[in-house]
Order: sequence, then C-alpha cells, then structure tokens
Amino acid sequence: MNIELVNTGTELLLGDVINTNAAWIGQRMAALGLDISRQTVVPDGAAVKAALSEAARRANVLIITGGLGPTNDDMTREAAAELLGLPLELDASVVETLEAFFQKRGRVLTETNKKQAMVVSGAVVLDNPFGTAPGMYIPASCGAAKGLNCAIFLLPGPPRELKPMVEGHVEPQLVRLKPDLAGRKVLYVKVTGMGESDIVDRIEKDLEAMPALELGYCLGRGDVDVRLSGRGETVEAAAALVRERIGDFIVSEDRRLIEQVVVDQLKARSQWLATAESCTGGDLASRITNVSGASSVFGHGFITYANEAKAQHLGVDLAMIEQHGAVSEEVARAMAEGALRVSGADHALSCTGIAGPTGGSEEKPVGTVYVGLASKNESTIVRKLFFPGARDRFKMMTTQSALEMLRRRLYGLSIS
Amino acid sequence: MNIELVNTGTELLLGDVINTNAAWIGQRMAALGLDISRQTVVPDGAAVKAALSEAARRANVLIITGGLGPTNDDMTREAAAELLGLPLELDASVVETLEAFFQKRGRVLTETNKKQAMVVSGAVVLDNPFGTAPGMYIPASCGAAKGLNCAIFLLPGPPRELKPMVEGHVEPQLVRLKPDLAGRKVLYVKVTGMGESDIVDRIEKDLEAMPALELGYCLGRGDVDVRLSGRGETVEAAAALVRERIGDFIVSEDRRLIEQVVVDQLKARSQWLATAESCTGGDLASRITNVSGASSVFGHGFITYANEAKAQHLGVDLAMIEQHGAVSEEVARAMAEGALRVSGADHALSCTGIAGPTGGSEEKPVGTVYVGLASKNESTIVRKLFFPGARDRFKMMTTQSALEMLRRRLYGLSIS
Repeated sequence: MNIELVNTGTELLLGDVINTNAAWIGQRMAALGLDISRQTVVPDGAAVKAALSEAARRANVLIITGGLGPTNDDMTREAAAELLGLPLELDASVVETLEAFFQKRGRVLTETNKKQAMVVSGAVVLDNPFGTAPGMYIPASCGAAKGLNCAIFLLPGPPRELKPMVEGHVEPQLVRLKPDLAGRKVLYVKVTGMGESDIVDRIEKDLEAMPALELGYCLGRGDVDVRLSGRGETVEAAAALVRERIGDFIVSEDRRLIEQVVVDQLKARSQWLATAESCTGGDLASRITNVSGASSVFGHGFITYANEAKAQHLGVDLAMIEQHGAVSEEVARAMAEGALRVSGADHALSCTGIAGPTGGSEEKPVGTVYVGLASKNESTIVRKLFFPGARDRFKMMTTQSALEMLRRRLYGLSIS
Repeated sequence: MNIELVNTGTELLLGDVINTNAAWIGQRMAALGLDISRQTVVPDGAAVKAALSEAARRANVLIITGGLGPTNDDMTREAAAELLGLPLELDASVVETLEAFFQKRGRVLTETNKKQAMVVSGAVVLDNPFGTAPGMYIPASCGAAKGLNCAIFLLPGPPRELKPMVEGHVEPQLVRLKPDLAGRKVLYVKVTGMGESDIVDRIEKDLEAMPALELGYCLGRGDVDVRLSGRGETVEAAAALVRERIGDFIVSEDRRLIEQVVVDQLKARSQWLATAESCTGGDLASRITNVSGASSVFGHGFITYANEAKAQHLGVDLAMIEQHGAVSEEVARAMAEGALRVSGADHALSCTGIAGPTGGSEEKPVGTVYVGLASKNESTIVRKLFFPGARDRFKMMTTQSALEMLRRRLYGLSIS
C-alpha cells in the first residue's frame, strides 16, 4: 500500500502553523505498519489540483487535509471532483447536520456555508462531530474513468476535527482495504533514565532478527518511547525481550508520562507529595499539576528562589547556605526535609542548581544540580546531576530526574 | 522568485520528528517577502532524486534539508550531482575542517566521514560551525547542460546547524539574486489581551491599502504577533498605524514574550515579585523563571493547592474559604495580599480557579478563574475570567492574564 499525504494551507508554508498533523498521521500509519512515501504541502487555491493529480498517479491511497472550509480559498473538494471527472452534489443529510449545527449556536446556515454540503459523486461522507466540514472517502473505483486507481480521503485541517476522523474512519477503512492489517498491534514502551544509544545496544540486534517486527524510537521530553508494531504475538514476544533487557527503567507501556505514573501510584497509596524548588522555578509542580486529579496527592509547593525564602518557608539554616552554597547536597537535603515537615506530606522532592547562563564556577559549573527526596520513615536521598545546555532542557531534565527518583521509591526500586 | 523546499528524512514521515524546520524556513522567507510555493518531504534514500528532479523543473530556487550525513542513507549530494550531471569532488579545505573537528574531540576522521567532504563540482561550500556536514550553494548556471535553471541550496537537517546557515548564507545569497530584497525590514508587533479578529478589524483594511506591505498574523501562546514586512519606510508607516489602533495592548516590538517584558521592567524598577498559585500549579512561576536573570526580581513562590496550604503559608482565613469557596474573589485577594506580606515583595500575583475536567458547578463552571494582583501602596485588584477547554490552555491563558495585569500596573496603564 503506497500512501501519500497532501496538506493544503498557506499558513503551513508561511510557517505561521507548524505541521503537527503530518507527524501525527505519520505516527498513526507507522503504528498500522504502513509507510507514507511522500508528504506535500501546497498553498490554498489553484495549486491544490496539480498536487492532487501528481500524487494520485503515484499512490494508491491519498490522504488530503484542509481546504474543506466555506471560503473561496477552500478548493479541495472541487480539485478532487475535477481530477476524477465527477460532479459535486448537494448532500441533503449534510445540509441537515449543518442546519442543526448552526441552529444550536443561534446562527443561520448561509449559502456560503452550504458549500460544505457539496460531496463528490460516489464518495462516502465522514461525519465531523467537532466542526462543520464533513470528510469524504472516495473509493479507488471512482477514478477508473480517468485511468486512476487511488483511494482518496478528504479530511478537515483542524487537529481536533482531523484526529477523531482518522481514528474513526480512515484507519478502519484502510484495514478493510488491506485485511492483513487487522490483528496488528502497536506497543509503546516508555523508558527513562537510560539514553537512546544504551537502549539500542541492549535490544536492537535481537529485535531486528524478529520477523515482521517494526521497531522505532520516539525521543520525548526526558524519555524515549520504544515503538513495537506488528502482529499481536510478534509484539508480545518483542515486549518480553524489551522488559528483560530494560527492566525497571520502563516507566509505562501505555504512553503514560512519568508524572501521570507517579500521581497514579501516590493515589493508589493514599500518599501526599510536596515540592521545594529553586532552579526549576515551578516546573516540577507544573508537571505534577498537569495531571488531572493531582489535587488528591499534591497540596503544598514552594518555589524558594531566594536564600531567605529557603530559610523562611523551609527552615533551611542560612549559616549552612553560607557554608556550603545554595547549590549543595546539604541544602537540597534540608529543602526536601523542610518541605516534608512543613507540609505534612509523605514525600517531598527538592531541586537546587545552576540553570545558567551565568552563576557557574569552576567547582560547580552551569548545569550542576542537586535533587533531593525525603520520605516519612525512609532515609533522605540526594543525587548530584549535571545538565549543561539550554535553560529549558536543564529544567526538563532536572524535573524528569526528580520524578524518576520518586517513581523508583514508590515502586521499591533501588535509586542509584 | 519561485521557491520550493524539500525536506529529506524518514523520521519526518514516521512522525518521530515534527518538521519545525519547514515552519521556521517559511517564516524566514515570508519575512523577506518571499513565498514558498511547495514543500515536500521524502524518505532518505532513492526517493530523494525523484523529488529533487521534479522540484528543480518547477522552481527557480530549491532549498533541500537533510541527507548530508555520512551514512548510506544520506544521498542528497549524490542526488543533486546526478540531477545536474556534475561530478562530486573531494574538497581539500573541507577535509581539513573535518580533520580538525574530529581531532578536537579526540577522534580520527574515518573514510565514512570523509564522504561529507565530497562537493558538487561548481558548488560554493557553506561552512557549518555547529556540525560536520557543510552545506552547498549550487548556482543556477550549473544546471544549464541539463536544461535546468534553478539555484540549489543543500542544508543540514539538525536545526542548530540549519538555522545559522540559512541566516548567514542562504538569505544573503537570495538578496544577491534578487537585489530588491535588500532594504526590506520585518517587524513583529506582539499583542496580548485582544483577540485576533479584533486586531484584524482595527488594522487590516487600512494596512491592505498600503502598497507593497506584507501583513501576517502568528498566533502564539496567549498572544498574537502582527508581522509587518516590506521596505523599511513602508514597515515604519504600518507600525505607526498599528500603534495608533492597538495602543497599550502592544507588549513588545522585538518578539520579547510578556514574561521577559515584565522581568525587564521589574529589574529597571528594582522591584520584587511573588506568586501564589492554586489552579495554575506552578506554571506562573515557571514562566517567570524561564527568563534568564529572574532571580534578581523573583524570590518567593507558593503553590497552595490545598486549602490548608493557603491558610498555613499565606494566612488565608479557612472560614473565609468555607464561606466563599476556594475559587472566589475573596480568596484570590487574600492569597495575593498574603504572598505580598509573607515575601516582602513589591508585587504579588495570585490565581485560583477550576482547571477541570471535574470540580465545576452551575455557578462556577469548569474554566472559572480569579486572578489577583497586590502591590505595595496600591489597591489590590482581582479579575474574574473564564477559560473553558483543555487544561493546558486554561493554565496558559490564566498565567498570560496574570502577567498582563502586572505589565499594565508596571507601565501605569488602566486594568479593566
């Protein structure tokens, strides 16, 4: 199956919008074991037709996004109809859906908007519960008169409309076109605390020997997703090997981020977490509170950027800061233990470091950071880490390491 | 000038990497007043040549990214040479640069890596101080024997290598090819607190009447950049009109984000800021501490997710929380005033709201949020806002509104 993707939209070429649809569709197709052989972006308007015509001659499945709106620039349905030599017909059921959509919002369906109910003759209408423009599936047979043999999907551009349509209509249709796609499985094994090259060294040689397994790596923010896809039993065998080789560096097998895993585990244990941040400046609390329902495990967070704040709110001894420096094992320990005591939580994480670009010394260069973990009835642990480089990466890697320390403690794993 | 962009890389089609290069190059070209007429992504390997051949027949400038590495899959230079019917030649000065690069890292230049010193005959080598693969500029005249008339740029894929090369080599070369691009100027007017359609209504009609002005809008996270490009005097005239119509909703004219503007202004006034966050869970402090040097204006931040934390650290009366609810004007006011008092700062911002998806009521639906601003010797202000929708957008819009309240106070502007 030779798939091409055409994204229409001048805003993509101007760089005003980053083409995340292309990456997302690529991931979905890869998960099905399908490759996209080419992806093209063309501006709205007349250029759409030429791009469609070229792609439909090369591919046997063509996915087109955008250009289904009501304005004059939205020409995808016209271009497809012209390419196939088929008329556009007003679809009464789409008109009805549009009328209901507008009525619900207290607006009247205009003639301009009615354009969105025009459907290529022979196409299957794909419902769009999240917007006005329906999608279309045009079977390959519709192009026979023009010597084409290419199934065409017309999809809306906005991601919140596009994604459910791909999952609900495009993927099931591709499975109908190529039944051996059924029974395929995709598994994402999320790994943290181990670099990509280490992961590759441990698993790649043996996994490459497995027949019909598709193996991929997605670098996330502080983690790596090992993507295994193929037939169900193949993926299971591969996952078993990955579990054996990567062990407790595996965070999740269902794409849950580490903050979600930690919050879920705290919930299961009915425990509370507090945070005391210096260099990460709120990013650690931000990640935790990005998880819906975090309020049942997280009550108190401190951002003690100033030394006086560390002393006033966490009880860190100013003389100790003077002696060892704010960026030190002693201060990280005192911050974590202070946050635990003040908040009454079961666990407290602390970070103190030098995000840069200034503030480094020979002994403690920019990128140096201490991460502390204090827990009720367990000994406090402090790790010294080093993340030189850009400020956002420093913050991200530091918070990832802090969450990983807590995850390991919650699961009873050793913390190096 | 008809420009096409070809990005090579299987990782782009698999969706493992989002194609931010395409958007960035699009923005740079738009700023020069140039449009990209088509952008294509092809996998590494043999597909590169077909894509190059098609694009070089349509365009008169072709920008190609990726495929300049040392592996067998990196075929861009071979594809370009074959397309133009020109040999690849080992460039002695590139070999020297590569040898120095490897020596500095204690490694030896291998034969495989030497491949990166092969240059299309007649091409100009573009230095790559951030990586090993140099870029190339192949003048249009090089394709004459094959009936082509297209200037070709070969650029490395990694953004940190690509961006300086575009700015330092591609853009100056385009100006040499099309001298009327010189003297062009681009200005980004960043606006917050006003929706895109409001901005359009106030400026678009008059700006569209200006000859040779390119007007664009980039939606940011909580703000809109109005992009004005054209000849210097045209852009200045347009900027004057935008300033008149948009007034004090303009945050910056140099792409500085609102958090940077606020930190800069606090520094200039030698003032301190504190934060007291409930629903935003550290995101407000995170944005402030993303600004390098924030430690000279920000010392204390509180994340009081639990009611007890609001009482314990900020002195909010628990009976008041009981009476009005944690999400209320009274509590937002008490949080801001408490943070001001406890920290000794000059200004304190507070947020309390319902991020959802649960916790809403008929009176206070999900998305309701109160933002407070307390300042020394000024009256405390609380605004009630409503941002229904996804959790990340809620947090972002809330922190944007808080920063905007402070910006307006720091500049002596009215706060509605």
